[in-house]
Amino acid sequence: MNEEESKSIMYVQTHGVDEPTKSATPFFLAAAAAAMDIEAAIYFTMDGATLLKKGVAEGVNIKRGEGGESLRFFMDQAQELGVKFYVCQPSLDLHGLSMDDLVDGVEMIGGAAFNSMALDADLVITF
Amino acid sequence: MNEEESKSIMYVQTHGVDEPTKSATPFFLAAAAAAMDIEAAIYFTMDGATLLKKGVAEGVNIKRGEGGESLRFFMDQAQELGVKFYVCQPSLDLHGLSMDDLVDGVEMIGGAAFNSMALDADLVITF
Amino acid sequence: MNEEESKSIMYVQTHGVDEPTKSATPFFLAAAAAAMDIEAAIYFTMDGATLLKKGVAEGVNIKRGEGGESLRFFMDQAQELGVKFYVCQPSLDLHGLSMDDLVDGVEMIGGAAFNSMALDADLVITF
Repeated sequence: MNEEESKSIMYVQTHGVDEPTKSATPFFLAAAAAAMDIEAAIYFTMDGATLLKKGVAEGVNIKRGEGGESLRFFMDQAQELGVKFYVCQPSLDLHGLSMDDLVDGVEMIGGAAFNSMALDADLVITF
Repeated sequence: MNEEESKSIMYVQTHGVDEPTKSATPFFLAAAAAAMDIEAAIYFTMDGATLLKKGVAEGVNIKRGEGGESLRFFMDQAQELGVKFYVCQPSLDLHGLSMDDLVDGVEMIGGAAFNSMALDADLVITF
Repeated sequence: MNEEESKSIMYVQTHGVDEPTKSATPFFLAAAAAAMDIEAAIYFTMDGATLLKKGVAEGVNIKRGEGGESLRFFMDQAQELGVKFYVCQPSLDLHGLSMDDLVDGVEMIGGAAFNSMALDADLVITF
């Protein structure tokens, strides 16, 4: 995968805690990308911000084979592999959240900054 | 942002009036893009077409801080900044809508035209 | 459309059988792309895998004008025009599905393979 060493992917997560079957994929794919030496980030907007609230991911079970993992497992794995987390400022308002309510390691950005980052990425995949 | 003056972003809105927390973001980001001199368009497909029905956006409240704005505010802001609105023909059928039911300034396009426009855009972001 | 003969689009379907109004568009657009000599594929992830379960698409009615078509019609049309179907391995787990449960002509790929294919495509459109 040498030719992809300098590539970047921005994943966008629009789904929140009320759609658990749509919660884990961006973390999973971003972690896979980071493991491939692709620069990976997740931008949480719309309902996505609700997944970042402290204590929430621990309570979401993602089925795998007979058992499962909590969403927190996928979130930690992504962050440990270097995936950056960004949250959309208006989506915090939408859900009555402030930055203090969120897990560590999240950066808040506005719409213009998101558009610039998205144009600069090699690929944007919105979920 | 000089280097982005000739860039274009096509946003795709799949969410409709039954998912109000997912309704405003494409208008907000497209308006931000237009304000950055990025050519911005929104393509409404799946349930997105329902947001374009006359009278609908006025009744959707988007929370901001203590108060909020109607979705119509975000829609008007985007159009005033030059964001183009396109609607997918089959999605009108899906919801029993005709072009006469929609707000002003919407153009109907088919699947082939959408694919061409999307390939020509610098970035496609689907919500 | 000569200049697009060697272009490729990867569509991503995250919506499943519980969101019928969001089920047909990727098949419709991918079929339109294939008819334009664009290389088209659909990657089914999150809830999208549920659409591939044998017998499911036959029971989903997509409104068109006065009548409608079953989702199977759109699925068959896409496959007949050469659209490739890929399914995300973890999303099968999520819904308790195995490859034997799925319609013919589906290939299972992991997260790293998806990221590579998505980076190689000219355009990725996620629904």
